[in-house]
Amino acid sequence: MTSLSQEEAFARIRLLRSPNIGPVSYAMLLQRFGTAEAALEALPELSARGGRHYRPVTIDAIEREVEAVRKADAKYLFHDQPAYPALLREIDGAPPILTWRGDLALASRPCVAMVGARNASAAAVKLARDFANALAQAGFTVVSGLARGIDGAAHEGALPATIGVIASGIDIAYPPQHADLQERIAGEGLLIAEQPPGTEPRGSHFPSRNRIIAGLASGTLVVEAAPKSGSLITARLAGEAGREVMAIPGSPLDARSHGCNQLIREGAVLVNSPEDVIELISGFDGQPRSRVRDDTPNCDLAPGELTAAEPTELAEILTAAPVPVDELIRQSGGNAAGVQLALLELEIAGLLERHAGGRVSLLR
Amino acid sequence: MTSLSQEEAFARIRLLRSPNIGPVSYAMLLQRFGTAEAALEALPELSARGGRHYRPVTIDAIEREVEAVRKADAKYLFHDQPAYPALLREIDGAPPILTWRGDLALASRPCVAMVGARNASAAAVKLARDFANALAQAGFTVVSGLARGIDGAAHEGALPATIGVIASGIDIAYPPQHADLQERIAGEGLLIAEQPPGTEPRGSHFPSRNRIIAGLASGTLVVEAAPKSGSLITARLAGEAGREVMAIPGSPLDARSHGCNQLIREGAVLVNSPEDVIELISGFDGQPRSRVRDDTPNCDLAPGELTAAEPTELAEILTAAPVPVDELIRQSGGNAAGVQLALLELEIAGLLERHAGGRVSLLR
Repeated sequence: MTSLSQEEAFARIRLLRSPNIGPVSYAMLLQRFGTAEAALEALPELSARGGRHYRPVTIDAIEREVEAVRKADAKYLFHDQPAYPALLREIDGAPPILTWRGDLALASRPCVAMVGARNASAAAVKLARDFANALAQAGFTVVSGLARGIDGAAHEGALPATIGVIASGIDIAYPPQHADLQERIAGEGLLIAEQPPGTEPRGSHFPSRNRIIAGLASGTLVVEAAPKSGSLITARLAGEAGREVMAIPGSPLDARSHGCNQLIREGAVLVNSPEDVIELISGFDGQPRSRVRDDTPNCDLAPGELTAAEPTELAEILTAAPVPVDELIRQSGGNAAGVQLALLELEIAGLLERHAGGRVSLLR
Repeated sequence: MTSLSQEEAFARIRLLRSPNIGPVSYAMLLQRFGTAEAALEALPELSARGGRHYRPVTIDAIEREVEAVRKADAKYLFHDQPAYPALLREIDGAPPILTWRGDLALASRPCVAMVGARNASAAAVKLARDFANALAQAGFTVVSGLARGIDGAAHEGALPATIGVIASGIDIAYPPQHADLQERIAGEGLLIAEQPPGTEPRGSHFPSRNRIIAGLASGTLVVEAAPKSGSLITARLAGEAGREVMAIPGSPLDARSHGCNQLIREGAVLVNSPEDVIELISGFDGQPRSRVRDDTPNCDLAPGELTAAEPTELAEILTAAPVPVDELIRQSGGNAAGVQLALLELEIAGLLERHAGGRVSLLR
């Protein structure tokens, strides 16, 4: 980026907030049309090829948003600005626009994410606080999600060297018990939100928030977590992004340890002490010692079904089961650009959903 | 082995019990001279080349030993007999002669070793008993060392499907608290001893005993152990022998878990349940999923020091620091047989000690 005009910044916000636009389609549109202003103009025609009418979000709505961000004492950060955290920029579907309050420099230090259960044991909460404190003392920034239990303890132990990533808008405190902590992080640490101001946190926002926590950090440490918990999802996102995944073990007799033990069985590094974390993250060179990866997604597509790359044809062979875009491209005989454009048109028309791992499915 | 005459069996026992003979030199002598009788005759001359007089153990002493084994209701097992456990035969320095009581067939089932602290927590003792019971129910034999704490619990949980390997002679009960358990294992399970009858357990016998425990089993599970404990040595011996190494984790806040957690950091598989063990051992094909290995031993030998392979010259360049035999052979310009013979002569003369990993040092 050379420099971002007020008008283009405004257009970018408007583009991202418009219907059916996500981080992936936003990036494709910017690349294809050069500017957000040009992309906004092209949206109705792209949507028409997907078979639907289209109306971008109103200018009024964006003006209200910008004013709310200003009132919250927050700022915007765009993905191609130098201050945008370098590791976060690397992940698939990195948030194109963030809002933030506090000390942005904390994000350019080496970051360790710490996550865990809301209903953690008292011992684990203390452990989380002690680990976070030791990591902060050693010059690391501790990233977490401001949830009750482990998250809150990690922030408290690390303050001021901590980043809180919230699933709501930058001006909404959640959970209510942590309103004071959130304000303290915004003042002494760094508070980051992807959703527009005024957004109340919804279930679907938490996975998005988790990918930012994992994406900011060189490694993610799980302190105490249930086997099917958001903490484990964050850890696996970190693994998929090529970052370290660490877990603190516990006795098999303690159900609250099962998630961490499972993660270690999947390849996470067992850590006993803050020194174990510091050693691992200090030596991190992009080749994690942990080996946590998602299994390759299944593909429900029969071979040879795709002959051209028209949105209507794609819509016919796609189902609600996610399939890898790579597989669609292979089927099309290598017409990658054609498939990507057709998928973009379907998405803008509101007919396509994107999933982790470069997979897509049809929205019904 | 075709068949072992009474005389040759007697000569083998006498050879192994003679001064300065260990499993490695015993095997070399049998290979070189064909029979133990011939080896016994050659010993004085070999020792003379090492610079010492030599006298094998008396025939009387061996007659008394054979009578003691008979009285203890025990039997001998030689390394080349079909009933000798196949996995144990594979390890470096496998015991050439064992004495045993009970049901030898238990050793030909898939075996899992379970070891751990003598002063284990009540929770870990119960866990060990439950794991051992589940493993026995699943058709495995549980191998352990009859120590207090985890070992005893493992035997009790698995009975009758259990092998007790003792550091003393087959007719000595140790520890005294487990005299009844040892007798029960000899009756319902299998009791194995490497040392001759009448031998009280000494410190130096425990590492030898541990290698048999690890060697009998496809994998070794550590339940609760201190970082520098015999249990961890057994686990590492299992790793070096190419077997699975498993550990049950615990909280970093519990010091009794530190050995297990450390082992998992070194590459042992974390196990939460007997099912985890069963899955791992059932699928064991000689390529362990665990990655516990000793570091390559350092070599204190300066290059080019060794020109011939005379015992006197070897004695001059060896020190009390163990060096790999392979390194000595490299230095000798590839004269492997010459170096091995010279080392054997030094050993029989009582000047050489053999260590794990094919290393030797000078005895002063």
